[in-house]
Amino acid sequence: MKVFILGGDGFCGWPTALHLSRQGHDITILDNLSRRHIDNELECESLTPIQPMGIRLAIWQQLTQKTIHFELMDIAKEYLRLLDLFRNQQPDAVVHFAEQRAAPYSMKSPRHKIYTVDNNLNATHNVLCAIVESGLDIHVVHLGTMGVYGYTSHGLKIPEGYLDVKIPDDNGQHIESRILYPASPGSIYHMTKTQDALFFQFYNKNDQVRVTDLHQGVVWGTNTDETLLDERLINRFDYDGDYGTVLNRFLMQAAIEYPLTVYGTGGQTRAFIHIRDTVRCIELALLNSPNSGDPVHIFNQVTETHKVRDLAKLVSDMTGINIQTIENPRLEVAENELEVSNEKFLALGLNPTTLSQGLLEEVKDIAKKYAYRCDNSKILPKSKWRK
Amino acid sequence: MKVFILGGDGFCGWPTALHLSRQGHDITILDNLSRRHIDNELECESLTPIQPMGIRLAIWQQLTQKTIHFELMDIAKEYLRLLDLFRNQQPDAVVHFAEQRAAPYSMKSPRHKIYTVDNNLNATHNVLCAIVESGLDIHVVHLGTMGVYGYTSHGLKIPEGYLDVKIPDDNGQHIESRILYPASPGSIYHMTKTQDALFFQFYNKNDQVRVTDLHQGVVWGTNTDETLLDERLINRFDYDGDYGTVLNRFLMQAAIEYPLTVYGTGGQTRAFIHIRDTVRCIELALLNSPNSGDPVHIFNQVTETHKVRDLAKLVSDMTGINIQTIENPRLEVAENELEVSNEKFLALGLNPTTLSQGLLEEVKDIAKKYAYRCDNSKILPKSKWRK
Repeated sequence: MKVFILGGDGFCGWPTALHLSRQGHDITILDNLSRRHIDNELECESLTPIQPMGIRLAIWQQLTQKTIHFELMDIAKEYLRLLDLFRNQQPDAVVHFAEQRAAPYSMKSPRHKIYTVDNNLNATHNVLCAIVESGLDIHVVHLGTMGVYGYTSHGLKIPEGYLDVKIPDDNGQHIESRILYPASPGSIYHMTKTQDALFFQFYNKNDQVRVTDLHQGVVWGTNTDETLLDERLINRFDYDGDYGTVLNRFLMQAAIEYPLTVYGTGGQTRAFIHIRDTVRCIELALLNSPNSGDPVHIFNQVTETHKVRDLAKLVSDMTGINIQTIENPRLEVAENELEVSNEKFLALGLNPTTLSQGLLEEVKDIAKKYAYRCDNSKILPKSKWRK
Repeated sequence: MKVFILGGDGFCGWPTALHLSRQGHDITILDNLSRRHIDNELECESLTPIQPMGIRLAIWQQLTQKTIHFELMDIAKEYLRLLDLFRNQQPDAVVHFAEQRAAPYSMKSPRHKIYTVDNNLNATHNVLCAIVESGLDIHVVHLGTMGVYGYTSHGLKIPEGYLDVKIPDDNGQHIESRILYPASPGSIYHMTKTQDALFFQFYNKNDQVRVTDLHQGVVWGTNTDETLLDERLINRFDYDGDYGTVLNRFLMQAAIEYPLTVYGTGGQTRAFIHIRDTVRCIELALLNSPNSGDPVHIFNQVTETHKVRDLAKLVSDMTGINIQTIENPRLEVAENELEVSNEKFLALGLNPTTLSQGLLEEVKDIAKKYAYRCDNSKILPKSKWRK
């Protein structure tokens, strides 16, 4: 299968490109290197020593004799180049990671809000518009987030994308209807993903574009089987207050013997998935694409849910590092429950890596090994949801 | 009240600016003249001889001794100028018309889709972001559209913004929930309005921005009491296949003795409102702003609903011009019913102008009077929903 990976230099994009290449797919990465540019802006780096794209691809070629192509471009701004690539290369599918993906970064300042909205919405729209203009039947696999639903859950299990509701009418009867699960985003970043869902709904209805939208949980872990082949293929590991997700932050803090910082009560329940399962899920989504005329396929790409304070305790027990509670910089419900349906991927054969299996390895092989590269001043959150 | 009118040179914006100025409000128009630029692009003009902004404002000053200020600017691109204006002028409210508002134009080509998405979404987001950055409590009145709900109605009366649903749980019980009415936009233009609703929901929840979102029907008519004061204050009248709404197109066709073109069966039911009622509704929305902490106020800004074929018959009976059916260029349900709740504006004292009262005047005073300015080649639709 010929696949474009939009945002293939990033934390999820890079291991996805390698995994799909190894499975024999013909891969082209499109990336504007924005994640590396943001490292420059934030004066912070991946804990792991990631290599420039040129080295990454040369090593991959040496080790596997497989070529991954690379186009340095901004799909939110270079519509005509994107269209030309579709026309010339005729990919079967695009995997779309090319969005600014950190909620705290999206809330840092007006400039960051504006950038996130402008970049994410134009990127997604350009992809859909170019597919229609090309006349090709290209399957779009989009990385969304569980966060589109908000976390003020009413105690119901979150279904996979659609919700069957009963709407009362004037006669005391009701009408049954299937609707997109109502969105309740908690940041500018999450909001753009809810707006993406409306792009997909429209282009699917009007132009029959085939779309799979993956509502992913918080990704943890660093390496996959492919990134482990050579240290120069290593994946990003972000631990800073903006891009570091909660579990990576805890691992880093444990490695440098810094108290594990829990925001508020730590009663926030979140859904998680290991990066190794992310790349498998994406391949499963590609191999099980919607048929022409199908509505947008929506999968919850998560494997387990945990409360933040339970994760902290897990890491603390494993490492002996204390837990410290700090004021929550975010606006969110202090305590929530979360139950998520993920039957679709399980039915397709996903066999998840669990936290209990993978955590120790992360502490030892990543956090402790590269702790000398850590800038401690970057760990605490700097972005606030309100002035 | 100090009010900014974003898009105050357009079909709804201009009469709104005059109406509010006459009522004693302090008005500043912000407009990039995009509607006039699009006239250049489409090689078409308003049927009525609209004057440049400088003349419009000078005449208004002469006649009423009231000053309307004007800033030529693009709010989708000039964020910092917008922020400066908020800080320096400290308006109480902004009325936001500054979006590309024609569904057919938004579907003309990939370039038009991209422009509509980029312009409309960044414009709305810049307004909200600048309000938060300014720290001012500015009420946003936004012009939305009934079209966000689509027209594949299940026979229920469309409520004002929110829908109370029952969600079945696993135990055979259900949970009651109030959600945004599910969107089903029929064009790129309509889609951007559904995405605007998510901007409003987020900024209202996160930053307590006070927003009134007006879901307007198809606007007909040309003049208001204020634009009638002098011919040089006259409002736009669009009759072309892109910007001319269905009723104006029929009036124009009748005036030049051209068959009234009905798309498909004409069984599409749409909601309508006279421009005179639009400007009154906006004043009512300004005078009845949400309280701090209120959710987004959503009003249906419509006064009556009609099937397109019934409108054609009305105009045909009045003028003796035949009806001609042409293939529908749009993707839409051939026949739909539409019942719309508009109790909120009626409760605030709106006394609607009905079609039966106003139609003849439009034919006589506008369509026939200016028929010599019509370019017949522009009347038929050129934009198609599918290649």
